[in-house]
Amino acid sequence: VRVYLDNNATTMVDPQVKEAMEPFFSQQYGDPNALHYGASELSQPLQDALERIYATLNASHDDSVVITSGSEESNNWVMMHTYFDQILSGEKNHILLSEVESPSIIKAAKFLESKGARITLLPVNSDGIIEAHTLKDFITPKTALVSINWVNRESGAIFPIEHIAYFCEQKGVPFHTDATHAMGKIPMSLKDNAIDYLSFDAHLFHGPKGVGGLYMRKGKELSPMLHGDNQMDGMRAGMLNTPAIVGMGKAMELAFDAMDFEMQDAKELLEEFEEALEEIEGVQILSPTNRRVANTLCVSFDGIDSEAMLWDLNLAGIATSKGTIEPSSLVFALSRFTTEEEMEYTLEAVKKALKRLRGISTYEA
Amino acid sequence: VRVYLDNNATTMVDPQVKEAMEPFFSQQYGDPNALHYGASELSQPLQDALERIYATLNASHDDSVVITSGSEESNNWVMMHTYFDQILSGEKNHILLSEVESPSIIKAAKFLESKGARITLLPVNSDGIIEAHTLKDFITPKTALVSINWVNRESGAIFPIEHIAYFCEQKGVPFHTDATHAMGKIPMSLKDNAIDYLSFDAHLFHGPKGVGGLYMRKGKELSPMLHGDNQMDGMRAGMLNTPAIVGMGKAMELAFDAMDFEMQDAKELLEEFEEALEEIEGVQILSPTNRRVANTLCVSFDGIDSEAMLWDLNLAGIATSKGTIEPSSLVFALSRFTTEEEMEYTLEAVKKALKRLRGISTYEA
Repeated sequence: VRVYLDNNATTMVDPQVKEAMEPFFSQQYGDPNALHYGASELSQPLQDALERIYATLNASHDDSVVITSGSEESNNWVMMHTYFDQILSGEKNHILLSEVESPSIIKAAKFLESKGARITLLPVNSDGIIEAHTLKDFITPKTALVSINWVNRESGAIFPIEHIAYFCEQKGVPFHTDATHAMGKIPMSLKDNAIDYLSFDAHLFHGPKGVGGLYMRKGKELSPMLHGDNQMDGMRAGMLNTPAIVGMGKAMELAFDAMDFEMQDAKELLEEFEEALEEIEGVQILSPTNRRVANTLCVSFDGIDSEAMLWDLNLAGIATSKGTIEPSSLVFALSRFTTEEEMEYTLEAVKKALKRLRGISTYEA
Repeated sequence: VRVYLDNNATTMVDPQVKEAMEPFFSQQYGDPNALHYGASELSQPLQDALERIYATLNASHDDSVVITSGSEESNNWVMMHTYFDQILSGEKNHILLSEVESPSIIKAAKFLESKGARITLLPVNSDGIIEAHTLKDFITPKTALVSINWVNRESGAIFPIEHIAYFCEQKGVPFHTDATHAMGKIPMSLKDNAIDYLSFDAHLFHGPKGVGGLYMRKGKELSPMLHGDNQMDGMRAGMLNTPAIVGMGKAMELAFDAMDFEMQDAKELLEEFEEALEEIEGVQILSPTNRRVANTLCVSFDGIDSEAMLWDLNLAGIATSKGTIEPSSLVFALSRFTTEEEMEYTLEAVKKALKRLRGISTYEA
């Protein structure tokens, strides 16, 4: 038995996505920026993929969506070039983050701190989120950037990003959101909000690994991180990765089409699982009840180390991941491919593991 | 008819490489750094691919080979973090390059110039290369980096990189080479030379797009460009792109195995093509006669604009690219898949195009 519930780490490439990528490895493999047939035959598939991405984000064509190697590149780009464009000159000196940002944001911030930037990490409230009004005591005239994730990887909590973006716009501070765990899970409309920068990554919504993007609102373009040839209008050098871009376009289409239908199944499966867990003694649900994405449940098991539980589940063929909210927390992250049988099997495996691990625990005590 | 002679822009993914990548899209797709079966099943294939890369470079396991999204990322990393690690503090101020570096090096240098770095572009000699002794008048006590490509994309000229690296080592200046167009075409042994940093890119040797690497000698490690989770020992964040890494490992194996055998065919085909071209009036071979890679020939056609020639060849189904050495130069870049029939067809197409374009040219004069 294999039950994959680690979909907030990475996901399976949807077989339809893989099929869409297929022709671009060994048949239509040319440089899309060349001056021969090897380029012209790629123009339509690439155009279609980019159109799909703009449509999904509901972004204006005046804005830039630059393809990157993934959200870590997008996040580091925003951090590093906020430094180059605003902080190095002394114009600004400060970046404001939540304490639950991804490691790519937090560690880039630590690096920039060593180069003279001032960093503030905002704590989350009891719901695990940050409200827009919390920011007001922390934004200074020297704040160059606010960056807050749209959805938290571990808890699945949805942050009030539109409010926060609007608040930052009022204060005149550029706002970035890492939407890695939001993309394909909640609707987005960049035409209707004030987000300046948004990072995303295909491998979290059944697209290929090694490809993602950075949205930049018109007038807020950062200096390039990867300088070079004029790919992506000179904003990101590197041979265009046609199969990956086509795959990401297809994956976005499928994810957003599935949001109302298939993800609904995952939501119901997860709610049933949650209800069953709540009946077990010493099990705490750490994900918020409301305002969370459909696929994610963070759970802690009193007195049990999460690695022990993770390993017992792994031996039963179930892939999950550790949380960091508490030492005993585990993240169950479903996908639109998760089945009822898989969740029933998982529930039984959790009960069995609990019994075994508590037995050991009692014995040792 | 389709004849692909643009292999210095990008190459076909070798069908054997594609086959090796196959299982890692929709079957074994997990996070290699996870704590469950989805990681353990990837450990051997990833280990094998990395071993192959170390073996091909003949690099010590004490040194670092960090997987990146390609040579543009590797090149920008070296440039940007030479700035962060040595120039920003005022310790050093200078970077020395050849004038024929790739756009990713040249444009990164221009960016750093705007941030206070001093850049020198060394001109190449009449053979299109730079000799080690030329550097001595340009290295200063404030030089933070020398970066010179191993093989030039357009001319195929091989630079005396081992000598240059040794010279830089004597002077105590870190040395980087962009080996994008050398990898798989000439033997390399990093254990036996003084190169500190080396960039490479899989899509130039029949591997997938979106993956490459940066070699860093022990003790010369740069600060990370992509901060985040502890992938690649904390040196480059981002979900490991298993299919791409496995594909690059396989592509390296095939390229280095083919160097003596199949590339020999390309070399002979290209030499025959060269001899036939030399018999045509007004055709100049711009590639050096000796010390060049087997697959590349840069040619100029007196009085003919290279775009016109490129377009005539494209209409005949032949993909080539423009050179920048002269306005009339064209680059013919073969691969181990190029056939005798293809080169005979190309020769006839070149003759036909020359006749047509010179006819127009005479008419218009």
